[in-house]
Amino acid sequence: MHKIKLVLEYDGTNFVGWQIQPNGPSVQAELEKALRQILQHEVTTIAAGRTDAGVHARGQVVNFTTDREIDPRAIAKGLNATLPDQIVVLSAEDVDAAFHARYSATARVYRYYLSLRPTAIQRDFCWYVGGYVLDLKLMRNCAESIVGDHDFASFCKADSGVENFRCKVERTIWNQQGSQLVFEICANRFLYGMVRALVGTMVEVGRGHRPAEEFKRILDARDRRAAGMSAPAKGLFLEEIIY
Amino acid sequence: MHKIKLVLEYDGTNFVGWQIQPNGPSVQAELEKALRQILQHEVTTIAAGRTDAGVHARGQVVNFTTDREIDPRAIAKGLNATLPDQIVVLSAEDVDAAFHARYSATARVYRYYLSLRPTAIQRDFCWYVGGYVLDLKLMRNCAESIVGDHDFASFCKADSGVENFRCKVERTIWNQQGSQLVFEICANRFLYGMVRALVGTMVEVGRGHRPAEEFKRILDARDRRAAGMSAPAKGLFLEEIIY
Repeated sequence: MHKIKLVLEYDGTNFVGWQIQPNGPSVQAELEKALRQILQHEVTTIAAGRTDAGVHARGQVVNFTTDREIDPRAIAKGLNATLPDQIVVLSAEDVDAAFHARYSATARVYRYYLSLRPTAIQRDFCWYVGGYVLDLKLMRNCAESIVGDHDFASFCKADSGVENFRCKVERTIWNQQGSQLVFEICANRFLYGMVRALVGTMVEVGRGHRPAEEFKRILDARDRRAAGMSAPAKGLFLEEIIY
Repeated sequence: MHKIKLVLEYDGTNFVGWQIQPNGPSVQAELEKALRQILQHEVTTIAAGRTDAGVHARGQVVNFTTDREIDPRAIAKGLNATLPDQIVVLSAEDVDAAFHARYSATARVYRYYLSLRPTAIQRDFCWYVGGYVLDLKLMRNCAESIVGDHDFASFCKADSGVENFRCKVERTIWNQQGSQLVFEICANRFLYGMVRALVGTMVEVGRGHRPAEEFKRILDARDRRAAGMSAPAKGLFLEEIIY
């Protein structure tokens, strides 16, 4: 039995998310279908992060097992020839039987892309914050205030099914790149909808719709109703899983 | 009468090109339709560069005239609310009656994006040069050899209708950006299919399919049949028009 680790890039625009769901095409369903074709047996895949509908990935990590004696590079090549254009395998390698894409991960990195001007080329990969002036300094203050071990219940979608809302945020940064503002966050774990709720609320602060002190009060409230809007899925990228 | 100058960004993937054609949607047709709606009169637009089917633009320049007394910024706003998502107006301004998007231009800048790995996110905006090792040094030598005033007949599509094949190339550069190689070229004018033929031929040299000296011989031959393949349209961007 071999355990294989894949690193995937995908354009989430037309998927219902990573996870198989009855209501539309998922990345997982496409991947498992392609693996069945190549390996000639049923395959169940486990992903490091269950990305939501419309969310993209540049470094999703997935594992599965097979008893076929196939070079992982041949699996990657076969997958890239079989998968739809929206999904690409960046690497494939044999890993130890103890490896688990989700539980072995020690940290995850997400990025969120805001555009300060309308864009045709990047329209599916960023959120155009139309016509507002954003105070980057205030947004950076918010981002700094969440570094550390906190209860993020205020930034978790309701009915997410989890009971533990604590996440250890290692670092956050807002970078300006041309006409884009990029928020990067690295944490040991993320709650459902957390990055989008954080970004949406920081943008409300940056626009002057909420005073900056309120951001800290929202975090302390531990209540999702306290937070601001959720930023659209299309600006969010799962960048990297760290083991 | 006002003359208005627009700067456009567009995703050329699903267009037959800039110019109105009977066989499918064009950027010009979409723009003129939106202008008719906003200005309530027929509008004919002139573009600096007639980009081909599938070619993108980040700095296409267009002009038209109107007798309406409308602030150009209101026209830009109206266009961005009316145009399909694939076309965005970056700026609009009043210009002198003597301004002509094509004839007033002194130089144009194009970029061509090669990807060294398969990509899902960038798949419509670069050419994945599958699995080959490219010798960037050889490709840079080719690029340097075309700087100056040359006859580019070898790199012009047949039946382009032009008689003068001379172009003055001000600068060329190949840059590596992560997993992408980006070719930038600035010239006073470009022939039909020229950048794609140049890139396709340079890639053949970079792959070792043609000796580097042949590139100069192809240029000197002044015969399109001498050149290599044409690189796919989707990697090409009209970046900037200089006046």
